Amino acid sequence: MSDQGILAVVSGFSGAGKGTLMKALLEKHHNYALSISATTREPREGETDGREYFFVTKEAFEEMIQKGQLIEHAQYVNNYYGTPRQYVFQQMADGRDVILEIEIQGALKIKERFPEALLIFVMPPSADELKRRLVGRGTETMEVIDKRMRRAGQEAAGITSYDYILINDALDQCVEEMHQLIQAQHKRVSQNLEFIQQMKSELTDR
Amino acid sequence: MSDQGILAVVSGFSGAGKGTLMKALLEKHHNYALSISATTREPREGETDGREYFFVTKEAFEEMIQKGQLIEHAQYVNNYYGTPRQYVFQQMADGRDVILEIEIQGALKIKERFPEALLIFVMPPSADELKRRLVGRGTETMEVIDKRMRRAGQEAAGITSYDYILINDALDQCVEEMHQLIQAQHKRVSQNLEFIQQMKSELTDR
Repeated sequence: MSDQGILAVVSGFSGAGKGTLMKALLEKHHNYALSISATTREPREGETDGREYFFVTKEAFEEMIQKGQLIEHAQYVNNYYGTPRQYVFQQMADGRDVILEIEIQGALKIKERFPEALLIFVMPPSADELKRRLVGRGTETMEVIDKRMRRAGQEAAGITSYDYILINDALDQCVEEMHQLIQAQHKRVSQNLEFIQQMKSELTDR
Repeated sequence: MSDQGILAVVSGFSGAGKGTLMKALLEKHHNYALSISATTREPREGETDGREYFFVTKEAFEEMIQKGQLIEHAQYVNNYYGTPRQYVFQQMADGRDVILEIEIQGALKIKERFPEALLIFVMPPSADELKRRLVGRGTETMEVIDKRMRRAGQEAAGITSYDYILINDALDQCVEEMHQLIQAQHKRVSQNLEFIQQMKSELTDR
């Protein structure tokens, strides 16, 4: 089948378990490359430049925009976030399936520019379960949790622009489902036009 | 996830191994219903009415067309072939994934009327392998085989209207790939609008 990697975008509510899911997917399957976003926000404690994010200045970020070095960028609370172009296309050319873990705004821009990109939205089984998980973390006040829940409600309107939803109920199952969704993309007709053309020639030139 | 069954269309060159594949899929997985086409052609030896086809007269077929009882129909070599509506929708409503094993002409009509239908084209690994399989059957003259090969070449132009291709190299693998492609369809956003709406309500009405 096609040698070209897939461009997959994974989004989800805060608390839906995206981080754990991505980590498990990359540990279990070795054909994935996780894109690292650039941002102008300050690193939080424990974050390392080039691991969680590429931390850059506002000037440097705006230069990246002008030079066309980002395939999408968005602003949240006065900070820029964006996806560096070179890494994504290099990995795809090398045959790796690239995952962008980005928010809805950026995901929709990717879909607009790359209609073949696969957009997956990870959801909790229910709103109650989402709240249980956010409370269970024990890191946030009830006020912050309520704010996250309301934000999730607003974000839910954007889900219909995605291709697939995955319900993160049992982690291992969800990892396998995500793997299968992304691998199925290699079988899309649009990924195999060369093979189809070759078959056509072989059948007619005889 | 969604309780509604998937409508999947499977096509492929004569000799690609569709028949064997369908049989293996239905034996291994029990959530599928295979639609039986109606036709005006004469039954061949060994064919039973209601198993391979519903064999009907030209008058009965044309009445089915007029009464809207077919979801697609096409003509090949002076015979009608069509897909009865009632069985397909009854099975889908019961939660079964319905497979239509039909030719390109009919498949494209299905896609036009039901954009959510999943179109899969089964291909041999190569033109040479297709020829080997047709010769291996030992049932057809070289003249008929050459005719089938040329027809496959013409049909190849229609493949780009399908969603996915599957290469039928190793049967068991191909069966699992088809199963995964169809099951992934249950995770499509368009299949889960009710769940998404419900989640949105739960998140905002708190």
